[in-house]
Amino acid sequence: MSDLVYSQVVEKASRYQAKSLEFLGKIIQFPTVSPRDKDGLRACAEELVKQFEKSGFEASIFDTTGDPVVMAEKNVGAKKNLLFYHHYDVQPEGSLELWDSSPWKMEVRGDRVYGRGAVDDKGPIAASLMGIMLAEEMLEQLPVNVRFVIEGEEEAGSISLHEFTETNRDFLRAEGLVWEGISSMPNSPAEIICGVKGDAYFELRASGPPNFPRTDVHSGEAPCVPNAAWRLIWALNTLKDKDENILVDGFQDEVVQPSDEDIAVLAEYEGDYAKRIMDDYDLGKTLLDRKGIELLKHLYFMPTLTISGLTSGYQGAEDMTIVPSSASAKLDVRLVPNLTPEKVHELLKAHLAKKGYDDIEVKMSPGYLPSRSRINDPFIRMVHELSKEVVAPAPSNIVPMVGGSGPAHFFTPYAPMCMAYSYSDLQHTNGHAPNENAWLPSLIHNVAFIAMVADRMSQLP
Amino acid sequence: MSDLVYSQVVEKASRYQAKSLEFLGKIIQFPTVSPRDKDGLRACAEELVKQFEKSGFEASIFDTTGDPVVMAEKNVGAKKNLLFYHHYDVQPEGSLELWDSSPWKMEVRGDRVYGRGAVDDKGPIAASLMGIMLAEEMLEQLPVNVRFVIEGEEEAGSISLHEFTETNRDFLRAEGLVWEGISSMPNSPAEIICGVKGDAYFELRASGPPNFPRTDVHSGEAPCVPNAAWRLIWALNTLKDKDENILVDGFQDEVVQPSDEDIAVLAEYEGDYAKRIMDDYDLGKTLLDRKGIELLKHLYFMPTLTISGLTSGYQGAEDMTIVPSSASAKLDVRLVPNLTPEKVHELLKAHLAKKGYDDIEVKMSPGYLPSRSRINDPFIRMVHELSKEVVAPAPSNIVPMVGGSGPAHFFTPYAPMCMAYSYSDLQHTNGHAPNENAWLPSLIHNVAFIAMVADRMSQLP
Repeated sequence: MSDLVYSQVVEKASRYQAKSLEFLGKIIQFPTVSPRDKDGLRACAEELVKQFEKSGFEASIFDTTGDPVVMAEKNVGAKKNLLFYHHYDVQPEGSLELWDSSPWKMEVRGDRVYGRGAVDDKGPIAASLMGIMLAEEMLEQLPVNVRFVIEGEEEAGSISLHEFTETNRDFLRAEGLVWEGISSMPNSPAEIICGVKGDAYFELRASGPPNFPRTDVHSGEAPCVPNAAWRLIWALNTLKDKDENILVDGFQDEVVQPSDEDIAVLAEYEGDYAKRIMDDYDLGKTLLDRKGIELLKHLYFMPTLTISGLTSGYQGAEDMTIVPSSASAKLDVRLVPNLTPEKVHELLKAHLAKKGYDDIEVKMSPGYLPSRSRINDPFIRMVHELSKEVVAPAPSNIVPMVGGSGPAHFFTPYAPMCMAYSYSDLQHTNGHAPNENAWLPSLIHNVAFIAMVADRMSQLP
Repeated sequence: MSDLVYSQVVEKASRYQAKSLEFLGKIIQFPTVSPRDKDGLRACAEELVKQFEKSGFEASIFDTTGDPVVMAEKNVGAKKNLLFYHHYDVQPEGSLELWDSSPWKMEVRGDRVYGRGAVDDKGPIAASLMGIMLAEEMLEQLPVNVRFVIEGEEEAGSISLHEFTETNRDFLRAEGLVWEGISSMPNSPAEIICGVKGDAYFELRASGPPNFPRTDVHSGEAPCVPNAAWRLIWALNTLKDKDENILVDGFQDEVVQPSDEDIAVLAEYEGDYAKRIMDDYDLGKTLLDRKGIELLKHLYFMPTLTISGLTSGYQGAEDMTIVPSSASAKLDVRLVPNLTPEKVHELLKAHLAKKGYDDIEVKMSPGYLPSRSRINDPFIRMVHELSKEVVAPAPSNIVPMVGGSGPAHFFTPYAPMCMAYSYSDLQHTNGHAPNENAWLPSLIHNVAFIAMVADRMSQLP
């Protein structure tokens, strides 16, 4: 079996554009917002089974108590197994007036293809499948065994996915796992991501009798009536200090500190993340003026405690003189090993009670565990080397654990996960927003990259 | 000149009901939301001039850069001068669907009269004028000289009233000032109010470049991007501690402590304010479990620092994982001597800068100065004695300075102010709300009370 050469693969990949778009058009047409679009989700899963079967896969639907999981497999008796994780559910379309064409009908305009899911994550499903077909065509047979897991609840917290992963462990065992998509573009800086932080989400709420008044009260009565907003402020203030130290009792004890290997990967990082953030958001400086390795260490290895929303009392333009009867804060906690949503919930409740704020209710939403693959796993290193070749002279950086969360923890016990993209792959694509689209050159390079990954993987020792 | 007897006065007052309602109907018909209803405000002021002239007053309009002030006078060469402060502007009507009849057309249903301003403050204007007419009728001539100041901007911050008060000081000199209305009902606990706290209102705001990002940011970037909500929390936390101590540097130095005379009046207070507050708002306990004199001391003599609203980030039902780009708090500060809105503004800004929060903007709205008459002023004592007679065996309490604010400070240098009401006068009247109304028995007693005040005042040494 001979090495594929990237330039030749890209040339061939361009001939897969029509086929990729045909496939994408077939799956974009189903509204698949979970759990809203029950029928569309089911129909899209069935279409996926049909399309994978047409490409020579054994494919089926795994039913859960939520939306169905699609599984597909092509076993060619190779030594290595390549697993793909994707999702066919999408974010809500929002206001239709903000879309220039229907979110549920694929449309190509200029060098972009529009439709909900074009970039997250229906487009990448098309690219992964076409990349595998391309490898099969160019090498005359598949160099690795291939499996796909395509779920329907990723944007809704993957709440039933464990039903699949717990009963299909053998299906998940692989030497490499492509997570949602990998691609890269010549001359565009790239990231090779091999982990995701976990996420815990809480609402902290001070509200109503017996601790707070049943209605808002004239602020002339402020000397008599407990103020829900002040209580919430004081309680929140005990959670984090202005130097960003998380003060929740017992929280830091759980945090696994980055290893020497972890710190070493940061030293290799090329590019100025601080400058990029400051430019993107018109900032005079980053948080606490963090830069270089210090910034990357927090970004990739440290937990965060973020207020994502505050609500209390009157919020209109006028001056309303009241003591508010309720106040609430949304709290997003990004988790690193060994923090779990449940552990953080317990620590938060215990901390508030100890500090005298048991009048503040703590409500938890479903969350995600943190999850990492080894930076030096052969599969990760191979993708990184490939990416460096493709994007050079732009840098390709390994990223141990990004802030975006997901259900990777169900998979990483069985296979090393890897997500990869160049910045230009995602620019102007409006993921999660109106007029979501994919850039056609990016789609083609994505197909080519997958074919290369399959080939290179088969050559790993 | 002989003492009027209350029971006889009330009997006569009931004959003023029709005339009071005729007057009230004429002035409720004008929409008078300041500054919205320019034409209605002007027409109402002109109608007031006409009505007062019909009752034998010299009346005129004083033009300001805002809405007009109505002044009216009947000088009978008496030794004592009784001044009335009222306002003919009203709160916005809000949603018309919530009204059972037009806010701009008086309607009597059962024992209540409905319409915007019925209780605040057009109804009390009618009662004050009719009370004076009743005293004149019963005593055959007015026992005191009477003056009225009726402004049109009270609900909008009285922003032009100083133009009138600065150029009409002689008009304001009086031995007694009825503030917005005085009345009391047999067997209903009453308050005699001889002062108002001042009010300063601020918006504290953390927002946008260069300190905060120009848009909300994915919370995965929390290690890099300053969070406007956290900054606001930490800044607010430096302003007040959880034992309700106001920590703004220099703030407490300005506060005039209550005198022995002030504390003595609290010792005379009959009734359980704490219990009333707990019952009204379903509270398990008052703020810091304050009771008795301790509660009253804070209620009547101490400043407050109240968060009236908090806004930041995402506030919908879902979990939105963002770092908010802006956060704001509405801050209501009730002022006692010698605090002024401007002084508090300066102290707040200096405090935040000193604590390292000069990234928080402090925007001030127009406010009111605190204002008090002497508790032992003969006019106040007289009203208190009269109220005790009327409401017995219910208690009548002197209240040095209530939390509700207003432009009294323009008047108290020239006359001792007094506001009085029984709880039943205001129950179910929906002031500032839909279906605002006045209770007809309360209106009649109000007319009688005014007549008694005029008579008793003339007998003061």
